[in-house]
Amino acid sequence: MASESSPPAPPGPLSSPLPEQVRAVNVGLSLFGEALRAQGAEAMDVDWRIPARGQPSLVGVLTRLYGRHAERVDQANREAVRRLDEGVAVLVEVGPAADLVPGMGRRTILYPGPPLSWERFCDPLRRSVLAAVMAEGWAATGEEATALVAAEGVDLEPANDHHAVVPMASAVGPSAPVFAVENRSGSNRAFSGLNQGPGRTPWYGVDAPEAVDRLRFLRDVAGPVLAAAVHRSGPVDVLSLAGQGLQMGDDGHMRTQASTNLLIRQLLPYLAEVGGPGLPAVARFLSENHLFFLNLVMAAAKTLTDWAGEVADASVVTGMARNGTTFGVRLAATGQRWFTSPAPAVEQALFHAGYGPADGAPDIGDSAVLELVGLGGAAAAASPAVATFLGGGMAKAVAATEAMGRICLVRSARFKLPFLDLRGSPVGVDLRKVVETGVTPSINTGILHRSAGTGQVGAGVASAPLACFEQALLALDERLGALGRPEASVR
Amino acid sequence: MASESSPPAPPGPLSSPLPEQVRAVNVGLSLFGEALRAQGAEAMDVDWRIPARGQPSLVGVLTRLYGRHAERVDQANREAVRRLDEGVAVLVEVGPAADLVPGMGRRTILYPGPPLSWERFCDPLRRSVLAAVMAEGWAATGEEATALVAAEGVDLEPANDHHAVVPMASAVGPSAPVFAVENRSGSNRAFSGLNQGPGRTPWYGVDAPEAVDRLRFLRDVAGPVLAAAVHRSGPVDVLSLAGQGLQMGDDGHMRTQASTNLLIRQLLPYLAEVGGPGLPAVARFLSENHLFFLNLVMAAAKTLTDWAGEVADASVVTGMARNGTTFGVRLAATGQRWFTSPAPAVEQALFHAGYGPADGAPDIGDSAVLELVGLGGAAAAASPAVATFLGGGMAKAVAATEAMGRICLVRSARFKLPFLDLRGSPVGVDLRKVVETGVTPSINTGILHRSAGTGQVGAGVASAPLACFEQALLALDERLGALGRPEASVR
Repeated sequence: MASESSPPAPPGPLSSPLPEQVRAVNVGLSLFGEALRAQGAEAMDVDWRIPARGQPSLVGVLTRLYGRHAERVDQANREAVRRLDEGVAVLVEVGPAADLVPGMGRRTILYPGPPLSWERFCDPLRRSVLAAVMAEGWAATGEEATALVAAEGVDLEPANDHHAVVPMASAVGPSAPVFAVENRSGSNRAFSGLNQGPGRTPWYGVDAPEAVDRLRFLRDVAGPVLAAAVHRSGPVDVLSLAGQGLQMGDDGHMRTQASTNLLIRQLLPYLAEVGGPGLPAVARFLSENHLFFLNLVMAAAKTLTDWAGEVADASVVTGMARNGTTFGVRLAATGQRWFTSPAPAVEQALFHAGYGPADGAPDIGDSAVLELVGLGGAAAAASPAVATFLGGGMAKAVAATEAMGRICLVRSARFKLPFLDLRGSPVGVDLRKVVETGVTPSINTGILHRSAGTGQVGAGVASAPLACFEQALLALDERLGALGRPEASVR
Repeated sequence: MASESSPPAPPGPLSSPLPEQVRAVNVGLSLFGEALRAQGAEAMDVDWRIPARGQPSLVGVLTRLYGRHAERVDQANREAVRRLDEGVAVLVEVGPAADLVPGMGRRTILYPGPPLSWERFCDPLRRSVLAAVMAEGWAATGEEATALVAAEGVDLEPANDHHAVVPMASAVGPSAPVFAVENRSGSNRAFSGLNQGPGRTPWYGVDAPEAVDRLRFLRDVAGPVLAAAVHRSGPVDVLSLAGQGLQMGDDGHMRTQASTNLLIRQLLPYLAEVGGPGLPAVARFLSENHLFFLNLVMAAAKTLTDWAGEVADASVVTGMARNGTTFGVRLAATGQRWFTSPAPAVEQALFHAGYGPADGAPDIGDSAVLELVGLGGAAAAASPAVATFLGGGMAKAVAATEAMGRICLVRSARFKLPFLDLRGSPVGVDLRKVVETGVTPSINTGILHRSAGTGQVGAGVASAPLACFEQALLALDERLGALGRPEASVR
């Protein structure tokens, strides 16, 4: 007891003396750091979370994929990422889907996203399919078209199964004109319909007569003129135009204004040479459509993801698409299989006057393929226009790019961001990083009316759902496990 | 003497006690601040220089213009700056100079910059005039053209005297097509020739046969097609396109790529409607010419500076142009009078392969009108491409804009800079600030070969010479003095 009142002993020699000043690094919950700071101590917060939300099965998978499978996966990833970032994709042809798209049948209609039964199609996609059926001449009215589809008189197939990608609620029938883009590095091809333009058009979920007329115009007027112009111009390097667009305020997804203009200027002489009675209408259509480049760059991106999709052991995501009902990802290891979750709502959205979140259909379209090659959300920091959607100015757009950077393997050698001192945009979404961090790709996209057939009601950012990435990771682990342990050979 | 060795007296009560900590503000030479910092004291440097280089006459003028004349000048400046920043300039017509440009005679050739006798014309401008003379059909060869000009068979007149502006070494004869731009706010008009495009063309100081052919093509093919297209399209808001261009990497002077593309997309339907056998060649010309917008935006800027030039007592610069021999500025107070200095060299330059500073002609052209309305050097911070000319990345481009900000009165309400959080570019160069600080406008511009007639050899930044601003300031002071002292009435 006496010792309690005696003065403390003078400090003696210690084998490891206490430091005079302590600065804390607070890992995880910021609460502890805040408590230290409240007492006047320095504390740096590290944003750390329990990997994979602490789920034992996923933690186990990550342990293997970062551990004994790491060499195999990393090697495959290097090749997959090289394909995504180095493939040279050129527009080579425009023509009817039936003539260009492999496996396109006489009664095929291509739709976006993972496979889905007609009963589960969302309203805007249904309307778009009906518009395509009417434009093909298979039905005269919406009722007839509905009956035909219900009677399975139409072959509804995911565009992705045909090396094609279509934005928003686009539906592509056999007579619809498509872009054919060739990957000069890998010699594979991919396809997309022509962008249908602004206003009351099927890709925005409208099936009114003027929407059907737009499809006929594309088939009968725009398609042939563009086909002839591209034939005269020769190959167009699509991703070079996209890269220039990033220097001019495009993100290459939500905004393609600059790349569209560059493409138009490049094709201008050939359009003029083609001439003919249809040219003024085509010129007006191009003049009014600042998203014309969107479908083309999607096809270019698809050539890269399909090529990367041949690298079997990679953990890089090689497919990402939505049909308005489900959101799916694909992986080279599992080929044509989709891992799906319910399609998310589009958040951080700006709505057209008179519309709000209750009007928005879930996220839809194949355009998320852009986010896999360094465009869209990955390139948000390139675009002051996209920044206005995110709110908070360029800082918010830069943060969106950096968030993608956390789950990507490299920075693009071709897509440079002027607001980040020309650093490349993130490329190569690694499943492992997504599941580990819980950060999913964010996708810059439009919003369609969920039921009224009135078309686009806004635009914003969709966050990919985590669950489908987790499923994909489990499948990759399973596949690598089935191939045997690499260590076995050295024991 | 004893006091020297005695200890210092303890501090007594002071009416104004010495502060415990001293932080120095070092005004002017940074040497003193550095000495303080070397001793561990804080010192902030203020970049201050003796106003007007300490010249007594100019200091006296500034004292009056910031003093007893301030109210009159400030009021005029507010109106002048409003005109520069709010005027709505629309392209209304394309047609032959003889038909559209006021006072254009049958034998008139317009040239850039302040008035100059033929003997003092620099080599590229001479060649350009000879090409124009040949294109007009007044001479069959360069020798004939030279003899004609020497015999005063041609009326050489500054474009600016005809409300016109022409870039680089452009020369405009009566048959050359021009843009007519109307200031909807002030109802005045201004003009510029069509941009002559890249390569071996007269505006780059080339008088070879293909250069003369380019002028004939503009007159016989491009002019009529563009005239018909603009007639069909109706008025085009030029500065709206320029403003959009700044969001897309243009500075609106050295780089007009984005605005050119926007203009082409806007005119596209009307070009297609016009059609005809000349269309493919015009389309190819537009497709290959990313500076096509330059001349148009110059004419738009000229409508604003001419309008502001009617505000008599302003100290805002309302004209700035070069002819390759002299550099001149104009002031509302002194009407058509130019204050000139020798044209400066273009510095901070990048040269085409095989060329260097010794090959460059001095700064030339009327395009510096752009720097007076918030474009070009004032908008350098908008353009990653311009930043590459300045070296040092975007920071250097931002510094160029901020330097213009030091001598300008306001920030533009229409030209917003994405890299500066959408702050406006500086508008309204104030003579007083230029002379006070010694900072002159910097102009983003091209460089022509000084003697060989080989065309453009590089691009860079020209610093306006200070002396002509000083002369203009003296003239303004003289004019205001002659008008009587405003104070007299209240004495």
